[in-house]
Amino acid sequence: MKIPKGYQFAATKAAFKYEGKLDLGAIVSSTPAVAAGVFTTNKFQAAPVLQCKDMLADGRKISGILANSGQANACTGDEGLTNCRETLNLAAKALGVPADELLPASTGVIGAQFDMDKWEAAMPALGESLMTSTPEDTAQAIMTTDTVHKLAETSFELKGGEVRLLGMCKGAGMISPNMATMLSFICCDADISTEAWQAMLIDCVNLSINRVTVDGDMSTNDCVMALANGESGIAIESEDDYALLRKHLLTVLEELAYKIVMDAEGGTKVAFIEVSGARSDEDAELVARAVGNSPLVKTALFGSDPNWGRIICAAGYSGANFKADDLVLEIGGILVFRNGTPEPGNMDDLLNPIMAKRDIVIHIAIGEGPGSSKLLASDLTREYVSINADYRS
Amino acid sequence: MKIPKGYQFAATKAAFKYEGKLDLGAIVSSTPAVAAGVFTTNKFQAAPVLQCKDMLADGRKISGILANSGQANACTGDEGLTNCRETLNLAAKALGVPADELLPASTGVIGAQFDMDKWEAAMPALGESLMTSTPEDTAQAIMTTDTVHKLAETSFELKGGEVRLLGMCKGAGMISPNMATMLSFICCDADISTEAWQAMLIDCVNLSINRVTVDGDMSTNDCVMALANGESGIAIESEDDYALLRKHLLTVLEELAYKIVMDAEGGTKVAFIEVSGARSDEDAELVARAVGNSPLVKTALFGSDPNWGRIICAAGYSGANFKADDLVLEIGGILVFRNGTPEPGNMDDLLNPIMAKRDIVIHIAIGEGPGSSKLLASDLTREYVSINADYRS
Repeated sequence: MKIPKGYQFAATKAAFKYEGKLDLGAIVSSTPAVAAGVFTTNKFQAAPVLQCKDMLADGRKISGILANSGQANACTGDEGLTNCRETLNLAAKALGVPADELLPASTGVIGAQFDMDKWEAAMPALGESLMTSTPEDTAQAIMTTDTVHKLAETSFELKGGEVRLLGMCKGAGMISPNMATMLSFICCDADISTEAWQAMLIDCVNLSINRVTVDGDMSTNDCVMALANGESGIAIESEDDYALLRKHLLTVLEELAYKIVMDAEGGTKVAFIEVSGARSDEDAELVARAVGNSPLVKTALFGSDPNWGRIICAAGYSGANFKADDLVLEIGGILVFRNGTPEPGNMDDLLNPIMAKRDIVIHIAIGEGPGSSKLLASDLTREYVSINADYRS
Repeated sequence: MKIPKGYQFAATKAAFKYEGKLDLGAIVSSTPAVAAGVFTTNKFQAAPVLQCKDMLADGRKISGILANSGQANACTGDEGLTNCRETLNLAAKALGVPADELLPASTGVIGAQFDMDKWEAAMPALGESLMTSTPEDTAQAIMTTDTVHKLAETSFELKGGEVRLLGMCKGAGMISPNMATMLSFICCDADISTEAWQAMLIDCVNLSINRVTVDGDMSTNDCVMALANGESGIAIESEDDYALLRKHLLTVLEELAYKIVMDAEGGTKVAFIEVSGARSDEDAELVARAVGNSPLVKTALFGSDPNWGRIICAAGYSGANFKADDLVLEIGGILVFRNGTPEPGNMDDLLNPIMAKRDIVIHIAIGEGPGSSKLLASDLTREYVSINADYRS
């Protein structure tokens, strides 16, 4: 793994919720980095989300990210915000960075207050781990119901040097419609302005992480934070430089997005839902989200059942503006339905081999318009129910 | 059971999908009845829905309802509509009513064409069953994944006589947001105008059947059809008469709505979600539906887990216009959250006994406004997934 220059990683076991699990991690940049962030639009924003937005508002440089799993520190009121700031003070000392340059992120159960004694007790080990921890360790520390840690990396040559990007995320449930119980951190060693980095991040998140759905639930804690510390010595100046970095940032975020849906709670399938021909991108997105969030479509995916009527039914109630007779449905490249009528032939025989696969492409055209949208969706399984019915016990 | 005057019931086994199950039924009124209907707003409307809307558009009187389970006759194009009309011709002869006074309704798998040979073969038995069948038989004939047939009845005195109402419905999945895979038939023997009956039906459906959610999926076949044949000899004329009949129609529809959620596919709980203090009823409904459709709330209900943060999270992404600090959450009468902060005390101990019950009242106030909304929601269980992953196999 090529780690972007100037970054160190930390991870330790603080027993916030479970004994013996890495649940507290940090990323530290030796040079204060340009920082960008995209956050949940949920009305109830967790204390760390409020704190990050406040810190990033003045365009300051950032020296690190502090993240925990176990408690979300959401719906915790003023006490939660005070606790959040206190954890930054504690960790800043342990990690050797200024507290006002450390961004917080939390994930876990909503509504529980931090146990500050556990935070204090964990600080020496967190600081020491900076010497030995890997990105894998930090990625593991932010896992909740994730079954695997999630990393993505890329690098490219520019002006005779190399720019590196490394991303990590967690997220398996409470995913969609705008990120969700999803933490994602990106480290980059390019030299770029705050404005350009923030614009690029928003742009790329909207095309990747915001295009996945597990269960349609958008959490209080979602965030994507991206650091660019300039340690590669390579400045992003021209439009071409910008386009190249953007392309690689999108690659990292798309890979993380796919990994989230691959690791969806209890998930066994990834549906690639593509909607085209809509009057607007918004209409296309309504259709994609209705199909990707339909429990009936998702259970049919789980059952490998070519019950395509449920896809059309979901498109029909999506609220998108289109004519029913214009809808053309293809599954795995097989034409299934057009002109309000199923195609002739034994559709089950044609579709069964496609539905049996892990990755399933569902293409829905709803006219001749310019609007389109894509969405990655997981299936809905007995295991999802078990995980979420028993999550706290 | 008090059957409204002038109605007969039919039911037989046509083996549309399963052998040995009642799957074809009818209701016949000896006097052509004033008829009202409320239908799915899905863009893909099943052939019987299109046919019914066409027939009811001219305000004609209706002598019966023909209903089948096994195939939905939805997404079946012109062939489906032709088949629908042919089944009306066949059944009209068998039942002794004019074909243009017989309303069709279908439920089952989307996209499959009728097997017309099976329809023809079933006609003699359908006709004969008129002599012997009960409302229970017809209610059984429209069941799909329902585990029990669903009937509701009421009667009241007016002008020295008795008016009777009898309702039946089917529906267990694909339920919400505006009815769904839900067929409901109401028989009444009052004498009322078409306009008044239609207005009353819309009004009452919006307060009952449209206030339930199982999985948020709205089907292609939903319909509520109501007949009023006047055989009681009692005319609904004054505002008081109207209010009395409306009250009893609502009672029948509310009982059917509760029975749908009680019998939700795999369901073990009924959540009564009440939202108040909203700026508008629409805002209140957004919150109620977001909470009632959240897979995370629904799995927590199944697990009897007082994970109240998921309720607040769903309210937060509902899109409703309110201030986060104004939200007050009560579960089973216990104050859980207000002013952005959880209430002190061991909430799990307080809520565990409430969450263990079958019926759970969730009250969410989001301000001081006049808007309110109610919704009945089922939980999400492993059994729901099993039923819908394996439904066609």
